[in-house]
Amino acid sequence: MRFFSDNAAAACPAAMRAIEEANRLDTAYDGDRWSKRLDEAFSTLFETPVSTLWVSTGTAANCLALAALCPPTGGIVCHKDAHIENDEAGAPGFFTHGAKLMLVEGDGAKVTPQALAAVCDRVRADVHQVQPAALSITNATEYGLSYRAAEVAALGSEAKRRGLGFHMDGARFANAVAFTNQHPADLTWRAGVDALSFGFVKNGALNAEALIFFDPARAAVVERLRKRSGHLLSKGRYLAAQLLAMLEGDVWLDNARAANAAAAALAEAAGPERLVTPVEANELFVRMSPGEAGSLRGQGFDFYDWAPGEVRLVTSWDQDLDSVGRLAAAIRAL
Amino acid sequence: MRFFSDNAAAACPAAMRAIEEANRLDTAYDGDRWSKRLDEAFSTLFETPVSTLWVSTGTAANCLALAALCPPTGGIVCHKDAHIENDEAGAPGFFTHGAKLMLVEGDGAKVTPQALAAVCDRVRADVHQVQPAALSITNATEYGLSYRAAEVAALGSEAKRRGLGFHMDGARFANAVAFTNQHPADLTWRAGVDALSFGFVKNGALNAEALIFFDPARAAVVERLRKRSGHLLSKGRYLAAQLLAMLEGDVWLDNARAANAAAAALAEAAGPERLVTPVEANELFVRMSPGEAGSLRGQGFDFYDWAPGEVRLVTSWDQDLDSVGRLAAAIRAL
Amino acid sequence: MRFFSDNAAAACPAAMRAIEEANRLDTAYDGDRWSKRLDEAFSTLFETPVSTLWVSTGTAANCLALAALCPPTGGIVCHKDAHIENDEAGAPGFFTHGAKLMLVEGDGAKVTPQALAAVCDRVRADVHQVQPAALSITNATEYGLSYRAAEVAALGSEAKRRGLGFHMDGARFANAVAFTNQHPADLTWRAGVDALSFGFVKNGALNAEALIFFDPARAAVVERLRKRSGHLLSKGRYLAAQLLAMLEGDVWLDNARAANAAAAALAEAAGPERLVTPVEANELFVRMSPGEAGSLRGQGFDFYDWAPGEVRLVTSWDQDLDSVGRLAAAIRAL
Amino acid sequence: MRFFSDNAAAACPAAMRAIEEANRLDTAYDGDRWSKRLDEAFSTLFETPVSTLWVSTGTAANCLALAALCPPTGGIVCHKDAHIENDEAGAPGFFTHGAKLMLVEGDGAKVTPQALAAVCDRVRADVHQVQPAALSITNATEYGLSYRAAEVAALGSEAKRRGLGFHMDGARFANAVAFTNQHPADLTWRAGVDALSFGFVKNGALNAEALIFFDPARAAVVERLRKRSGHLLSKGRYLAAQLLAMLEGDVWLDNARAANAAAAALAEAAGPERLVTPVEANELFVRMSPGEAGSLRGQGFDFYDWAPGEVRLVTSWDQDLDSVGRLAAAIRAL
Repeated sequence: MRFFSDNAAAACPAAMRAIEEANRLDTAYDGDRWSKRLDEAFSTLFETPVSTLWVSTGTAANCLALAALCPPTGGIVCHKDAHIENDEAGAPGFFTHGAKLMLVEGDGAKVTPQALAAVCDRVRADVHQVQPAALSITNATEYGLSYRAAEVAALGSEAKRRGLGFHMDGARFANAVAFTNQHPADLTWRAGVDALSFGFVKNGALNAEALIFFDPARAAVVERLRKRSGHLLSKGRYLAAQLLAMLEGDVWLDNARAANAAAAALAEAAGPERLVTPVEANELFVRMSPGEAGSLRGQGFDFYDWAPGEVRLVTSWDQDLDSVGRLAAAIRAL
Repeated sequence: MRFFSDNAAAACPAAMRAIEEANRLDTAYDGDRWSKRLDEAFSTLFETPVSTLWVSTGTAANCLALAALCPPTGGIVCHKDAHIENDEAGAPGFFTHGAKLMLVEGDGAKVTPQALAAVCDRVRADVHQVQPAALSITNATEYGLSYRAAEVAALGSEAKRRGLGFHMDGARFANAVAFTNQHPADLTWRAGVDALSFGFVKNGALNAEALIFFDPARAAVVERLRKRSGHLLSKGRYLAAQLLAMLEGDVWLDNARAANAAAAALAEAAGPERLVTPVEANELFVRMSPGEAGSLRGQGFDFYDWAPGEVRLVTSWDQDLDSVGRLAAAIRAL
Repeated sequence: MRFFSDNAAAACPAAMRAIEEANRLDTAYDGDRWSKRLDEAFSTLFETPVSTLWVSTGTAANCLALAALCPPTGGIVCHKDAHIENDEAGAPGFFTHGAKLMLVEGDGAKVTPQALAAVCDRVRADVHQVQPAALSITNATEYGLSYRAAEVAALGSEAKRRGLGFHMDGARFANAVAFTNQHPADLTWRAGVDALSFGFVKNGALNAEALIFFDPARAAVVERLRKRSGHLLSKGRYLAAQLLAMLEGDVWLDNARAANAAAAALAEAAGPERLVTPVEANELFVRMSPGEAGSLRGQGFDFYDWAPGEVRLVTSWDQDLDSVGRLAAAIRAL
Repeated sequence: MRFFSDNAAAACPAAMRAIEEANRLDTAYDGDRWSKRLDEAFSTLFETPVSTLWVSTGTAANCLALAALCPPTGGIVCHKDAHIENDEAGAPGFFTHGAKLMLVEGDGAKVTPQALAAVCDRVRADVHQVQPAALSITNATEYGLSYRAAEVAALGSEAKRRGLGFHMDGARFANAVAFTNQHPADLTWRAGVDALSFGFVKNGALNAEALIFFDPARAAVVERLRKRSGHLLSKGRYLAAQLLAMLEGDVWLDNARAANAAAAALAEAAGPERLVTPVEANELFVRMSPGEAGSLRGQGFDFYDWAPGEVRLVTSWDQDLDSVGRLAAAIRAL
């Protein structure tokens, strides 16, 4: 019973049907009928004109966005636990040609305006020090917390005041929307976000992520970078079709709600004492001795050791409810 | 009726079935059961132990290979018409951190040992000039010619003598194998090739290309580069499954034979006078006045203007035989 | 008797005196009294406000300029014989993060507007091809020719029409000014040049080159790149002092005139038959059999074999007139 | 009276004489008589065969060394206060093509074997995380501490055990040698150091730093990188001559001793209470209120505000003893 990550779940029926439907001749790259509808579909969702690029991975989405927002000589402020810092093999350095990640600390992997201001204020404005050029946050965070729109807006305001571009790694953006019940627009561009990596793969797509630019002018250079980094698939229509299919009827939101609900059930079973952070998406970070973790594994549950005395449980859009119930019971019985 | 390119055809039934079969929970990235079988499957095909990485595009396959074979300070000898020079948006420069493409000329976009030797001999061995570090050829070439094993071996020998790595861009490798009827091993490692971009997308896959290293030790660094460039999909199993399914029962070869046969039929219709180069794969380069091209387009045929007075016709694995017959007739009637 | 290159001559008295004078405590980097006077001094010379950065090498000057004028995704049009293509070890690729040199041919290593237009017109405007972003010419050229102001202006006009930045590698700019007797402003910004690598080392400086931006706004990013590439010397005042000293009293022009005069004397001795190109600066390219070259070397003359049957002779600001006379006689006696 | 930094002092007599002596025609780049003697001179000093490259700045020396020791995909462990992290404008990212600085903490800007082990042990060996490839320490440190040979050896041993290259930023290496009175060999290669940026500019050179590789084989690639990064001066002989002249008769050591002695005199005046760290080179970090700092400045002393309540005083090889005495008295009088 897998609670290891949401990154290996099956593709959802809507995505698979979309692939079937796209399996006919059309124009290559992003000239096809599906790709051409992307901007409109996401503009509708976000209630503002956006530019949308499909890519195959979240790392590509994140790093293309960062390359658009930060020059090689610049710095990107992010949390020390950020995915771009810890889990992308140095891809930000590759895509930006050596820009610097400027790390901040903060509870639950959240960046605060104060932390942002502090790291920027420490930088001398001379040519000897790398100047911050962008802010990147993850929503939901690497600790499963969801930023509220007001929190994002406070960061956006601080970022704008300092002339920083603002990127949101939304590998689990759907889960954050589902949890906060706030509008995608309020969580992003209305709060100052310039670029969003809108994750679909963890949420039921096969291989399609959406990279959204709220200022369409910024997308032009990224279209070149997407090709230059080998991310312009010739049969891109299959990716576009998945995204469209998951937007339609709010499949993306239903999937995220299902994953969140499974996590909430486990959170209730674990109880506040064991939880490292509140459960605000589809991830739980649970205090647990090695013995307890071993006991759960002995019962067939698969999950990740996050830190000493701490495990991570992740639920997926298709998490089997029976296994959730059994894991909840097993946790209660620890 | 599309003869524009083979890069937008539908995915073949074997590939689509494989995607269906892979649509279940497994381990992420390349830890799944399909990915784990790749090395064995391609080692069997090539009759030698190989390392195989799936990627989503030919550009990624080519440029990861080049990054493995050439340091940032080095040069890559290739034909001036090579895809890596003309159609990858500078991706080789991106992946290699600025290595230099050293261009040679040659009929039909072929590199000869003489041309390779000449470009290398022009380089002074001092620190002021970029030293050649790798050779990259395309098979079948950008002009639809297939290298024979002996030609590859002559290049391989020259490359080895000079200490160059040897990469083959095999976006249409299947078509070259089908045309020459020579063994994949004879066309690659037995002839000195170190890395092969083995194309599947143009030949009926949805989004999977195979990057083959004949010296498995070389693949280790590329595994990091694949992640670092955003090309490690979390649900990589769908790519591996496509590759395996197309290897099984030689689907890849049957598909290529079908495309080649369609091209051969058109070539016969065009006649040697009109053909810029012999048709040795699934592409034709046909001399044609603008008026003639316009006439064909008026009859519903879609194709690419390659050069003044020259058009390119490409056939796909699933080229409709009726449309082939009609185009053949239309060409005859010009 | 050295006619090998002008790159190893002694530093001229003005430069050496300047170093002595700067040998006192002042502010580090470019905050010192000499560095602070650079902009004014060069603005006076060029009759327009310019930004000036000292650097230690022509390669640094060229490549910092190119990095300012061309993004990593772009292309730089230059002659196939350009120094940036042949003699800088791939430095343009390093500083620009992989931008592409787009080579043109042309007599005497000159770029013509027609050649510029042709190479640009061959590029499709799609994302698959690198788009030209800058033009770089060398004045005097690698074949010792000096562009006239009208020639530069024709290139500048074509470049501007196409939105290209315009860089001049002026390693021997002084020699070109001396030969054409045209104003530095007419040869540069009035003709559309955006950035000039104004060479002083070949012309009698010890280690100081001037990088000039005619739009001072462009210099800001380069100040960061200069530091980032390790080219911001802490004791930069010695470089600034050399440049100022060589501007004062037109030492730079006198030095170039002396070198040109020596070359002209040799050119007269060689006669038009032997000269590959007219001598318009301080370099001669002389047709000569290996036997003839050997004979001259046997008489103690040191020079460079440029191409089969062709040698290069270079004169310096301090070329010994006696040795010039002897070489002229020896050439006449061939 | 300047106690701001040692980076802007005048060049010492030996260096200036060397420049005069080198001011004659010789071979360009590093083919001249002075450059050719470098390896031997430094091999004698270090009692082992070394390769030596002159460069113009410490940033160039550091980053060329790092590029030799760490691939683009790798990580470089260093102190969070390291010059390469804080004061080189992201140059390590530029020269290494995006390698990651992995920061550790430690008193007095020193790295300990424990800190090195801890940061390495936190890294998973998978492709998602950047793997450490090199260690870089600064000696004397950014807080003016000198590593003892045994400390370096403990780090070297830990580094070797983990397969890391080992670089020492020796911008003030001479000061560390002078303070510890330990042999340069014991502080470097005998302790496992692979590459040393041996600083001369802060110690009395005009524009010459020495980059030393204790495994000469490593230097070959760096010779290309030096050219590729624009750091191969055509008149390199002036740099080589300075280095040789400062080695001769131990000028480098005498200069460092003089600077250290001046710092020691100030340290005695300040007393242990005010000193943030022991004074083990030519830098003092002194606790001081803004009012006290203002008072000293009012008396004509120039220095750097290092941190809140903390100023930095640096002495140079030619520090005027009278000004040292006056500053010592002024500090005592606070």
